[in-house]
Formats: sequence, C-alpha cells, structure tokens
Amino acid sequence: MASPIHSLHNPRIKQALRLRDRRGRTQQSRIIIDGWRETCRALEGNATPLELFVCEELLAAPQQHALTQLAAARRVELTPVSRDVFQRLAFGERGEGVVLVAASPRTALDQIPSADQAVIAVLERVEKPGNLGAIVRTADAAGLAAVVVADPSTDLFNPNAIRASLGALFHMPVAAASADAVRRWLETRGWNVYAARVDAAVPYTHVRYRRPCAIVLGSESQGLSEAWLGAGIQAVALPMHGIVDSLNVSVTAGVLFYEVLRQQEL
Amino acid sequence: MASPIHSLHNPRIKQALRLRDRRGRTQQSRIIIDGWRETCRALEGNATPLELFVCEELLAAPQQHALTQLAAARRVELTPVSRDVFQRLAFGERGEGVVLVAASPRTALDQIPSADQAVIAVLERVEKPGNLGAIVRTADAAGLAAVVVADPSTDLFNPNAIRASLGALFHMPVAAASADAVRRWLETRGWNVYAARVDAAVPYTHVRYRRPCAIVLGSESQGLSEAWLGAGIQAVALPMHGIVDSLNVSVTAGVLFYEVLRQQEL
Repeated sequence: MASPIHSLHNPRIKQALRLRDRRGRTQQSRIIIDGWRETCRALEGNATPLELFVCEELLAAPQQHALTQLAAARRVELTPVSRDVFQRLAFGERGEGVVLVAASPRTALDQIPSADQAVIAVLERVEKPGNLGAIVRTADAAGLAAVVVADPSTDLFNPNAIRASLGALFHMPVAAASADAVRRWLETRGWNVYAARVDAAVPYTHVRYRRPCAIVLGSESQGLSEAWLGAGIQAVALPMHGIVDSLNVSVTAGVLFYEVLRQQEL
Repeated sequence: MASPIHSLHNPRIKQALRLRDRRGRTQQSRIIIDGWRETCRALEGNATPLELFVCEELLAAPQQHALTQLAAARRVELTPVSRDVFQRLAFGERGEGVVLVAASPRTALDQIPSADQAVIAVLERVEKPGNLGAIVRTADAAGLAAVVVADPSTDLFNPNAIRASLGALFHMPVAAASADAVRRWLETRGWNVYAARVDAAVPYTHVRYRRPCAIVLGSESQGLSEAWLGAGIQAVALPMHGIVDSLNVSVTAGVLFYEVLRQQEL
C-alpha cells in the first residue's frame, strides 16, 4: 500500500470530513460508513464504493485480508491514513480501522420490486436515524422486501441509521417520497395497506394480513398523519395494558412484522 | 414557596448532584428522576420521594398545579431552585423544570408477586440502561407482572433506564439477583421458563406458553449464558430471514411478550 495520508488538509480527507453533516452528504451525493461489519456489508451489498480509508494500526490482519479481497472485487483501493487522521474521520468511539465513502444510493420508489407475496414497511416521518436503522434491521430479519420512508425527516443513509441497521441498509431496497406519492404508488400497485395507530379499534391480531401489503408506521412523537386514514386502509392497534400509552416505534414494527410472518406459516 | 436555592454549594444540591453517578446512587441509596412525566409517574407509583426540586421559570402553571397536588399527597415539599442550579441538576437537555430525588426502591426477589396467570421477563446482564428501560416500557404495555434482572451490569434505576421506560419503572415490580438465584427462585415457584436464543431449534411461534411463566432474554453482545440451558427450560428462537444474525434485545422482547399475550386470547 502507499504511505499513509498524515494531513487533515489533504483534499480527499477534507471532502470526506464534510460527509459528517447532512448538508455535506447532500452536496456531494455521497455517504460515509463506519465500522468493520457495516463496511463489509456495504461492499457486499448495493453500495457503490468510492473511497476506502484504513488505519492499519487499528485493523487486525484477518480483517485487513478480508477487506482487501472485498475491495478488489468492488474495484476500490485501500487508502491508508495515519491514526490521527483516522480518529477525525471515524465516528465517535468506533476505532475499527476502516471508513468507507460511497455514492448516495438511489431512493426512488420505482426501484422497489413488485412481488405477489411481498411485505414492505412504510415509515412516515420517523425522526431518529437510530429508529430508522433499527426498523431496517428488524425488517431484514423478518424477511420484508423493502422499507419506504414517507415525508422523511432524516436522511436515510445517516451514519447513525447505517450503524443501527448493522449494515442491513445496504441489502434492503429502501426508498423515500412524499406521503401522498407513497399512497398513490401503493394504490396503483393494488397493495393492501395496514396502518399502526394507537387509537385503532381493531387489535393487530384480529386481522388477516393479505399480501402483497404495506405495514405503515408513524413518527415517534406524532404517530401517523391523516394521509393514512380512509377507504382501503386497515388501521390496527397493539393492545396497551399498562400505564404507558405507546410503544417505541421499532418495537411496534417488530411485533407487526413478526405477526405478518407468523400468519404466513399458518 | 420559599425563595429559590441559588448556590451549587448548598448541601442538598451537592448531595443531589452526586446522584448523577452510579457510585453516588449506591452510597446514598437514592435515585434521581428527570422529566415531568417521569416525576409524576414516580410520585403516583411506588417511589418514595425525598427531594423535589423545581425551577418555576421552566414549569408551566398547570404542570406546577398538578405537581403540587401530587407532592402534597406524597408528603414531599417543592424546593425551588434557580435556573442555573436547575441546569446543573437536570440531565442533558431536559429543561422540564423538575427533578425528583427518591429512595432507591427495593429490588429483592421476594417482592415479585406470585400469580397463576403471571408472565414475567428475566433479563440477563442487559448492558444498556436504555434497553432495560425500553423493555420495561414494553413489558408494562404487554401487561407483564414483573421484570427481573439477572446478574445486572447496570443499576436498574439508572436515569437513562427511567427515561426510556417513560416512568413505567415505578409501576412495574422489578428485582435484581444473581442468575443462579433467579433460576432457583423460578424452580421453587414451579414457573415455566422460556429462553430466547438465536440458535434455538424451536421457533417461538411453535410453543404454547403455559402460565405462570418467565421469558428470559440475554445481553446485547453475549446472548444468554449457560445458566439458562438444560431441563425444564424451553429455548425459542425468532426466525431470521435476512443478513443480520440478531435483533435488538428490546425488539425480541416485544415480539415474545406480544406472542404470549396473543396466545392468551385464543
């Protein structure tokens, strides 16, 4: 490998550092990925790698070996950087010796595959990137076909979302659009729509989920908007037996996704 | 009310500030509670209030009124503090004008009620207070009878756990003990034990959960220890259909608690 980059003034480093802000990500149409596992999943998945910065001191030999092979397969070079430069590039405490810069993935609705048995998640205005990532992780585990964000209030490939997804964001088709566009798109496809509402009259266990379908979840603070009321949309609620009046949105997502999966086995 | 405390050297303030550290909480056998909702739930629930600090500038009139009534019912006085003192007392960004100090609740196993139809959660070595709190919130919603922590690696009433539970920690019986003690206690009571393991052969949906029972969950990084293998313990797994090899422990908890609840309706 070449000798490590030591300077924070190096233009490639400066460009990468700007990706810590959402504005920088939007301007450059690039994203930044931390962590060994997440980087591997991005390289194995549908990300387009552009820069792969490594700090050899922090990277164990077997990890470096695996990374070199993955990088060769995706035609991206390893760029060594000094420990000081790496500490600035990497997020928080993640001293795993690798940071990947990739092209911002496309997030158009038309790339979501259509399939008779598909189940997808629709998340309206989820506020916390960590919740978005956690839901993508759960959707991956439950075998969902895609995650669509309606009226996004965070960027989908925020570093915290990538981290909370454990890299599943690079294996799951994801898209973003306005709530109206998502509703029309679901109608056009003729998919069944189930909306989680704390005040719904029908318990989520009393519904037979017919595929293809979308499970729609609202924001942490506001729940679902009125875009998800009306004909053709079945509202469902999780029973609440205690003093709290809601569940964390990623827990609600898990309960619903796994109920849909359970019913498929019947 | 008396005139506000302005000095960080006031002995009551100094004592309360030490509760931000686990060591301080252990030494004083006290806990500290942030947030309007959480404080109300602590006063309505089973906490023993000792000090109730308020910053009148930050507290809206209706909130102050409700708080005064709850405080009178629990025989604790409101102690006004200056804004500067309050900012030090309160955690992070929580400018809700109220901080409650309470006696550390008892966490002995003997206070967990016994009931024929009870379902409890057992959490072994859960590491993140936020996960502990999130699971207590979900347990409350799903109508569980108690949450027991085995071999705790965080203090149960850590401020982040209280916050993530939305105050449900003060309404849910909680206990902590060694994993061995918890296992013996469950055996003595003759409760059915279901342990969530990623490598279990039996899917969680193939089991008929017989009450009274305990749902046992492991730590974020390690899963369950060998204390939860063997005769009399039914291991169950959530199907994993994607690239990630596990779910967040609070999502696993939600799926299992709600499956037990669903089966009760059948």
